[in-house]
Amino acid sequence: MKTAEESVLLTDLYQLTMLQAYFDKGMNDTAVFEFFVRKLPDNRHFLLAAGLEQVLDTLENFSLSPHELDWLANCGRFHRPFVDSLADLRFTGEVWAMPEGTPFFADEPILRIVAPLREAQLVETRIINLLQYQTLIATKASRVRLAAPGHLLVDFGLRRAHGAEAGMLSARTSFLAGFEGTSNVLAGARWNIPLYGTMAHSFIQAHTDEIAAFDDFSHSHPNATTLLIDTYDTEAAARAIIPLARKLAADGITVQAVRLDSGDLDQHSRRVRKILDEGVLPGIRIFASGNLDEYAVTRLINAGAPIDGFGVGTRMNTSDDCPYLECAYKLQEYAGGARRKRSEGKASWPGRKQVFRRYDADGLMAGDMLTTENDEAAGEPLLECLMREGRRLAPSPALADVREYTRGQLARLPLALRSVEPAPRYPVEVSAALHALVKAVDQRDQRS
Amino acid sequence: MKTAEESVLLTDLYQLTMLQAYFDKGMNDTAVFEFFVRKLPDNRHFLLAAGLEQVLDTLENFSLSPHELDWLANCGRFHRPFVDSLADLRFTGEVWAMPEGTPFFADEPILRIVAPLREAQLVETRIINLLQYQTLIATKASRVRLAAPGHLLVDFGLRRAHGAEAGMLSARTSFLAGFEGTSNVLAGARWNIPLYGTMAHSFIQAHTDEIAAFDDFSHSHPNATTLLIDTYDTEAAARAIIPLARKLAADGITVQAVRLDSGDLDQHSRRVRKILDEGVLPGIRIFASGNLDEYAVTRLINAGAPIDGFGVGTRMNTSDDCPYLECAYKLQEYAGGARRKRSEGKASWPGRKQVFRRYDADGLMAGDMLTTENDEAAGEPLLECLMREGRRLAPSPALADVREYTRGQLARLPLALRSVEPAPRYPVEVSAALHALVKAVDQRDQRS
Repeated sequence: MKTAEESVLLTDLYQLTMLQAYFDKGMNDTAVFEFFVRKLPDNRHFLLAAGLEQVLDTLENFSLSPHELDWLANCGRFHRPFVDSLADLRFTGEVWAMPEGTPFFADEPILRIVAPLREAQLVETRIINLLQYQTLIATKASRVRLAAPGHLLVDFGLRRAHGAEAGMLSARTSFLAGFEGTSNVLAGARWNIPLYGTMAHSFIQAHTDEIAAFDDFSHSHPNATTLLIDTYDTEAAARAIIPLARKLAADGITVQAVRLDSGDLDQHSRRVRKILDEGVLPGIRIFASGNLDEYAVTRLINAGAPIDGFGVGTRMNTSDDCPYLECAYKLQEYAGGARRKRSEGKASWPGRKQVFRRYDADGLMAGDMLTTENDEAAGEPLLECLMREGRRLAPSPALADVREYTRGQLARLPLALRSVEPAPRYPVEVSAALHALVKAVDQRDQRS
Repeated sequence: MKTAEESVLLTDLYQLTMLQAYFDKGMNDTAVFEFFVRKLPDNRHFLLAAGLEQVLDTLENFSLSPHELDWLANCGRFHRPFVDSLADLRFTGEVWAMPEGTPFFADEPILRIVAPLREAQLVETRIINLLQYQTLIATKASRVRLAAPGHLLVDFGLRRAHGAEAGMLSARTSFLAGFEGTSNVLAGARWNIPLYGTMAHSFIQAHTDEIAAFDDFSHSHPNATTLLIDTYDTEAAARAIIPLARKLAADGITVQAVRLDSGDLDQHSRRVRKILDEGVLPGIRIFASGNLDEYAVTRLINAGAPIDGFGVGTRMNTSDDCPYLECAYKLQEYAGGARRKRSEGKASWPGRKQVFRRYDADGLMAGDMLTTENDEAAGEPLLECLMREGRRLAPSPALADVREYTRGQLARLPLALRSVEPAPRYPVEVSAALHALVKAVDQRDQRS
């Protein structure tokens, strides 16, 4: 039995109704689709490509089970010859893409699919579903990372992510974007992401005494002792930790950190730091959580709050200030002819495209050129071929390597783009060759 | 092999570290947790409870596989006796809840779990993950439903939902809230939700001629012909449909609707309606999509746009104007004693609670009373017992029945709460009994 994540039926009905119409007319020439974002959100200076790995997995495992074929045959919408034609459906095409962790901008394709029409069409819904969400979260998480370059950052967002897969993918993608780890155990187990966790308020409340709760927890986890101190009175708890930490030290247990989860984190962190330092416990770190995002983290760091690490959850993995992207997966070529949509406000650049990126003398990104696939331009081409005939050309890099690549990419962003403050728009030019192609396509379509 | 959705490891690390500490101390008395929302979002007049069905499924199937137990034993964080103690872990407790589709307000619990501490604690993360998202989407979708009481509403949001499960659950929950159906094939297959779909722009573009595309599609789907007319020039396409529709009628094919997906939907719908009416095709319906939500739908309907149905996607199933809730699952009682968190801005009402709802002479909701479980108050108690000893007391109602119940509930909302305009706050009182319990708990804790 396939999971929802794996099922070819996790798609929009119109993909299948279109496929039947293509089947009836025998239309199955080579189609070229590209995924891109139409418009950079107002509160994003760049986007960070992510989700490619799950797209490649989907394409390599793309087939309908007998159970799914039966459902299609019996749902009353499709005729038998069409459903039978789907029995041998596999993805046999080509994939070009920007590596995960590459910054990109409006109108730049991050993925190109070249495949027989029925395959390239049917994968649309899930490709958008995977690329949009992970790009959204990689972008958001990288903004937090850039806001707090020297701090520990941990994904705490599983509980308020939009379902199980969102929780899994946001753990993956925030790690890719530079977080140190996640609280999500299954994501840690699946992708070897370091796990972090402290304790819940319920743990304190289940004990009749806060210090007894700290003591119990420390003995059960002598190597991972972070104490949550805001259940009743934050500063009182910090003061009570001093004799406890001395007692635990005698048992060979080191209290590593305290966690603040409510109130004014700036003020509490200063008072708690002072209490711990006066108690000669300068080694205890302060970890903060609670509705954090890149804006809150920037404010706390600019204010000089003595916080060593942040648990970032809900606002990161719902991307709450930008919960979706104006993204599209569009037909750019069919049967050798470039295609272009001209709907109001949604016109697209036709044909197979490439993006060339230039760098300045310091190695920082200096400008992109959007052009046709075979055009030449200064700089480095960003889309590379990763799959042919439905198979990866090489094994995918390990997530830790993607994270390292991403770190390098973020270090090449122009300085203004790394901040949450308004920034000049990154320059993306459209080449003469692409303008000429638009003109040729429009003239051809007017003649027809 | 379990799916992510089913895995007990889809949880925060701290649940497991706390469980080991409880194991070490032999703490496993009865715990009572409740799920509630701390604060109604500014742009919501009510919330609609949803997600209970998936919570009950999770609880009835709650166990660790041998593979998961091995992982825990080998991850370096837990000792063997603790991991061994998890082998027979099942959910053996009690569940009280408001039925799905019940409106609720800040501080009102919609779910209560009564179970041995380790069980009640370990289910926290997934319970929040399921209840928050579905409540968010049921609420958003019901706002669209209330804004367009006589229109066809279809969930089109799978592609931009946050992952696979969000796409599945938003199809379920928008149907529950009153939508007529979804484009998500797998959700249709799983929950028997009516499926809707039209065609993509790529279908038009893959043909050299728009009318040829319409003609092909209509012949392949003679009973479900909705034509997408905005790929190039909306009004030109509408005019071209008139002779096509006559020709198709001769073949026994009726064009049922046209779809608009870009530009000014109000203006386009008026022009297209006029063209179709003048072409003596008054039976062709107009269906609109593209960044719609309750605000856009309200504007279009108030303006008198001749639109018969709406495809509502991204903004509904990301709940873009409110992408998360300030929700919590809190320990309210342990080993027979009521508990209460007092963190700044996050204090909670202790003990097992019940909500009584009163209605006015017209049957509309008139006010709620939040009180202790065994208190008496005027009105109808909203939380009912659905599970004991880890098993449902009765089979869950069919989704269609939940939808019907929800329709009845929305019809009992005070009129002001049904609108997107500002509304007076719905009255929720806290009983004298609950105030007395707070006082008793605080006095007890101060003594200890």
